[in-house]
Amino acid sequence: RKRILVTGGAGFVGSHLVDYLMKEGHEVIVVDNFFTGRKRNVEHWIGHGNFELIHHDIVNPLLIEVDEIYHLASPASPPHYMLNPVKTIKTNTVGTINMLGLARRVNARILIASTSEVYGDPEIHPQSESYWGHVNPIGPRACYDEGKRVAETLSYAYAKQEKVQVRVARIFNTYGPRMHMNDGRVVSNFILQALQNESITIYGHGKQTRSFQYVTDLVDGLVALMNSSYTLPINLGNPIEHNIDEFAQIIKSIVNGADSSIRYLPAVEDDPQRRRPDITRAKKYLNWEPKVSLDTGLRKAVEYFRREILRSS
Amino acid sequence: RKRILVTGGAGFVGSHLVDYLMKEGHEVIVVDNFFTGRKRNVEHWIGHGNFELIHHDIVNPLLIEVDEIYHLASPASPPHYMLNPVKTIKTNTVGTINMLGLARRVNARILIASTSEVYGDPEIHPQSESYWGHVNPIGPRACYDEGKRVAETLSYAYAKQEKVQVRVARIFNTYGPRMHMNDGRVVSNFILQALQNESITIYGHGKQTRSFQYVTDLVDGLVALMNSSYTLPINLGNPIEHNIDEFAQIIKSIVNGADSSIRYLPAVEDDPQRRRPDITRAKKYLNWEPKVSLDTGLRKAVEYFRREILRSS
Ligand SMILES: NC(=O)c1ccc[n+]([C@@H]2O[C@H](COP(=O)([O-])OP(=O)(O)OC[C@H]3O[C@@H](n4cnc5c(N)ncnc54)[C@H](O)[C@@H]3O)[C@@H](O)[C@H]2O)c1
Ligand SMILES: NC(=O)c1ccc[n+]([C@@H]2O[C@H](COP(=O)([O-])OP(=O)(O)OC[C@H]3O[C@@H](n4cnc5c(N)ncnc54)[C@H](O)[C@@H]3O)[C@@H](O)[C@H]2O)c1
Ligand SMILES: O=c1ccn([C@@H]2O[C@H](COP(=O)(O)OP(=O)(O)O)[C@@H](O)[C@H]2O)c(=O)[nH]1
Ligand SMILES: O=c1ccn([C@@H]2O[C@H](COP(=O)(O)OP(=O)(O)O)[C@@H](O)[C@H]2O)c(=O)[nH]1
Ligand SMILES: O=c1ccn([C@@H]2O[C@H](COP(=O)(O)OP(=O)(O)O)[C@@H](O)[C@H]2O)c(=O)[nH]1
Ligand SMILES: O=c1ccn([C@@H]2O[C@H](COP(=O)(O)OP(=O)(O)O)[C@@H](O)[C@H]2O)c(=O)[nH]1
Repeated sequence: RKRILVTGGAGFVGSHLVDYLMKEGHEVIVVDNFFTGRKRNVEHWIGHGNFELIHHDIVNPLLIEVDEIYHLASPASPPHYMLNPVKTIKTNTVGTINMLGLARRVNARILIASTSEVYGDPEIHPQSESYWGHVNPIGPRACYDEGKRVAETLSYAYAKQEKVQVRVARIFNTYGPRMHMNDGRVVSNFILQALQNESITIYGHGKQTRSFQYVTDLVDGLVALMNSSYTLPINLGNPIEHNIDEFAQIIKSIVNGADSSIRYLPAVEDDPQRRRPDITRAKKYLNWEPKVSLDTGLRKAVEYFRREILRSS
Repeated sequence: RKRILVTGGAGFVGSHLVDYLMKEGHEVIVVDNFFTGRKRNVEHWIGHGNFELIHHDIVNPLLIEVDEIYHLASPASPPHYMLNPVKTIKTNTVGTINMLGLARRVNARILIASTSEVYGDPEIHPQSESYWGHVNPIGPRACYDEGKRVAETLSYAYAKQEKVQVRVARIFNTYGPRMHMNDGRVVSNFILQALQNESITIYGHGKQTRSFQYVTDLVDGLVALMNSSYTLPINLGNPIEHNIDEFAQIIKSIVNGADSSIRYLPAVEDDPQRRRPDITRAKKYLNWEPKVSLDTGLRKAVEYFRREILRSS
């Protein structure tokens, strides 16, 4: 049994990770500033003897004693991270420095949640971990992309110089229950639009692609990575790729009785045109690959959205 | 007459900038932690009523009142910035945040010294400012390259969000008096080797290229950029390109009586293969281009090194 810190543990991915770790019998401490996270995501653990929830912003130093750190705190979707770009960068630079400093002091292993966005708008396809990426350092997404890139750089600098044990997960698009309804991302937008019979909004030509992974697959990958001896970055994502046009049709077919039309809107700036993980490394070193099909996963997400809509009305 | 802060003002470039600004009659405040800088570089101003030297590390907040900030503090050469990668990143992230926070509070215009290293090992040639770069986020140079990239990102985030007036100079290889004798860079190594009749060390095949700018040209460019209304990044460098083999011959011919042989050593990791600035933007918006020829500039640098060797013996 370990004492495990999950930063951003009240968020979408973090709360599923907390569920997993609690069920394994660990002591879990969540640190969150509730910028995009919600108490409700972890409310089923409040009062449990192994669980603690700390309201804290990681841009400030944190003094606690732990064995392991899953460092997930960061806004994650474009509308959230663009809301306050300065804060996004501070969280990923100063915040990550604090968590690495903590890991160093207490000699804890730390896993950093990086992202496929470090590859930017990729020129090679699919993306393997050796690809250096194609990121606009002063574009609208830069606060997140460059913030995460330098968070990786920091991690390996602490590993080399301070002997901190780091693990780096490059997470690709993930969906599932507890994802944000109004973060403007494609999965949430399309499901909401289909459920409410509004037209489905496609930005640009709809031929850009993404690969969507169900959240419990990701959690399995994060835990496998933390417990492995492999120290270089590892892609965690589902290699099954769809273009956005197809994806709109898939959602319509899953949401019973959806009658939405398709509406094409202007493309967004610097929108990556293709994205698919090469997961050879994860297969080889973690013996990991996604298990949940898009159909199964999306049905669970749709179910969650249905309940949330009911709840809020 | 303005009150001007120069961070890293006791360093190579900073001290030349200080000379220029002092001669223009401004009040100049230098902030430096003397990691690579030296009091001696600015000693001729100590005691002057317009000059102040503050021993301070910009990783800590700084409270002063100024009209303009030239933010140059950062280790700059590979052996210096690789000595303590964590500190290099902290200086470029936390340090830059502090200087942007200062600029914001006192409403000062701030110029950020960025670098051609944001282009990494470039795939397009010459490099124009619209190129996104090719940088290894976890390579040995990443602490500097990614640190500078995110420093740019931070600058534009503060510009957009906090209305800070920022200027960004992407500086290409620069040389001249007061450059570091033992920083392992090509100009200093070759001059020292030629002056001491040691063999000239070429890393790799010697066909990699660089373009070298004399330091007073750079200072003119920095001042022009600070005073212009142009807000996007601007390359400041000399577009005349040489490969390292040629460069070795040039140095040998300038150092009278040099009798050095050439010694080929293994290539260094992630060494950029070609680098030359496209300076169309600087010409158009700043009416700037380099004036000092390589021959004239190198003679001054060689003279400086000769005196320094005498002095230290
Ligand atoms: N969901 C995805 O598709 C995806 C893809 C790639 C990477 N990631 C990464 O995974 C991590 C989790 O993402 P998510 O989808 O769960 O997002 P989320 O927004 O649901 O969770 C992030 C959590 O971090 C918290 N947080 C943000 N800034 C903080 C700060 N300064 N101090 C303390 N807490 C702070 C938020 O309140 C939230 O609870 C993030 O680091 C994200 O970059 C997610
Ligand atoms: N010289 C070049 O060829 C070149 C090329 C590209 C960019 N640049 C940039 O220009 C700037 C100046 O470079 P330089 O060649 O004069 O290098 P330098 O090492 O001579 O000067 C840097 C100065 O910053 C100071 N410094 C470093 N970290 C500090 C900290 N945390 N707090 C306070 N002071 C600190 C050093 O003591 C030094 O005086 C740097 O930002 C560098 O990245 C230089
Ligand atoms: O238990 C700890 C230890 C360190 N830090 C912070 O982590 C950062 C980096 O720590 P490090 O040991 O690298 O550096 P230093 O304290 O020397 O700046 C510092 O700002 C600390 O405040 C923290 O939040 N908790
Ligand atoms: O209502 C929407 C939301 C998103 N997208 C597109 O879907 C893709 C995925 O966008 P998302 O914001 O979900 O994630 P990211 O770009 O970070 O992968 C991008 O090409 C978006 O332009 C879309 O067509 N309609
Ligand atoms: O005169 C100043 C004003 C701010 N800062 C530092 O600059 C950083 C960023 O300032 P900002 O105003 O963006 O943010 P905040 O103070 O809200 O973190 C902070 O850490 C401050 O300590 C500084 O060093 N000098
Ligand atoms: O003694 C030396 C020092 C450097 N170089 C090469 O010269 C180029 C410029 O190196 P420097 O460290 O001066 O600067 P940067 O790589 O940052 O441009 C690189 O290709 C180095 O491999 C070399 O051949 N011999």
